[in-house]
Amino acid sequence: MAAETSTEVAETAKQFVLKEEVIVERQWLKLAETTYTDPFGKTRTWETVKRTGNKKGVTADGVAVIAVLQRTLHYDCIVLVKQFRPPINGYCLEFPAGLIEENESAESAALRELKEETGYKGEVIECTPALCLDPGMSNSTTHIVSVIINGDEAENTRPKQNLGEFCTIYLKILRR
Amino acid sequence: MAAETSTEVAETAKQFVLKEEVIVERQWLKLAETTYTDPFGKTRTWETVKRTGNKKGVTADGVAVIAVLQRTLHYDCIVLVKQFRPPINGYCLEFPAGLIEENESAESAALRELKEETGYKGEVIECTPALCLDPGMSNSTTHIVSVIINGDEAENTRPKQNLGEFCTIYLKILRR
Repeated sequence: MAAETSTEVAETAKQFVLKEEVIVERQWLKLAETTYTDPFGKTRTWETVKRTGNKKGVTADGVAVIAVLQRTLHYDCIVLVKQFRPPINGYCLEFPAGLIEENESAESAALRELKEETGYKGEVIECTPALCLDPGMSNSTTHIVSVIINGDEAENTRPKQNLGEFCTIYLKILRR
Repeated sequence: MAAETSTEVAETAKQFVLKEEVIVERQWLKLAETTYTDPFGKTRTWETVKRTGNKKGVTADGVAVIAVLQRTLHYDCIVLVKQFRPPINGYCLEFPAGLIEENESAESAALRELKEETGYKGEVIECTPALCLDPGMSNSTTHIVSVIINGDEAENTRPKQNLGEFCTIYLKILRR
């Protein structure tokens, strides 16, 4: 990053977590109390959500896929999915996304999730580092993966979703 | 949104939440078990995180501020903050952000948080609807608020953070 200037608040100590106690752990999520030091060395606590399990060989919890569908004589489109999200009690329009499986790369997870949720076969062109979605609440991280879909390829002309996925596909035209 | 085409998976029922049971509730967060219907009418459960309390008169949990600092004879800069995040046990580089207070508008919250975390006084130019940060995990929502900072104004030439905020300010040059 091109940091032009930086301003320190004060002469403060490096902060770190002292301990973390699990309050409750379920199948997918756990709520913990994190004890940490503030910049003045004072001990404080924070409520933290984490996903359960420690998957080996993964660089983040999940991927989100910015997929551009390219077809001859059509505008390029971004591929979005609409699906029911229980925490919201409603439908969300989202980038195709999902959790990375054990020993799976971010790129492979992105292409797998795109295929499952939309039926499209893509090609990865860029992948961000792991990004925190909501670091005030949880340690959940995601790679944003940019993908190109050749819509003229036979398998992409009538994409077939995985039947286990309950998504409606939307194509958002990118006007240039 | 300009939806060009949409594809239904199958003839499926509208989904909805049937009930939600709190597993544990602490001061700031609670973990709940959400029971909902799948598209085929089958009852399923989901683990959901929510913030506690029901703040009145707010349209989302929080705001994130994309603030552009404009100064004569300088490149425009995006204002970022680095701060310790206990869930990550590390420092995150983020847009200035924070929770909306009771009966506070998204725009007011954005200008307040920007002022507290960076010392800059800005002017709102755009505000998104409430967006879900991680709808597979929680119902947490955020407005992304675009702000312009007139860096030539007297109070913005030497911005002073609120002493309660432990942020380091970074300016990311926008090359044009």
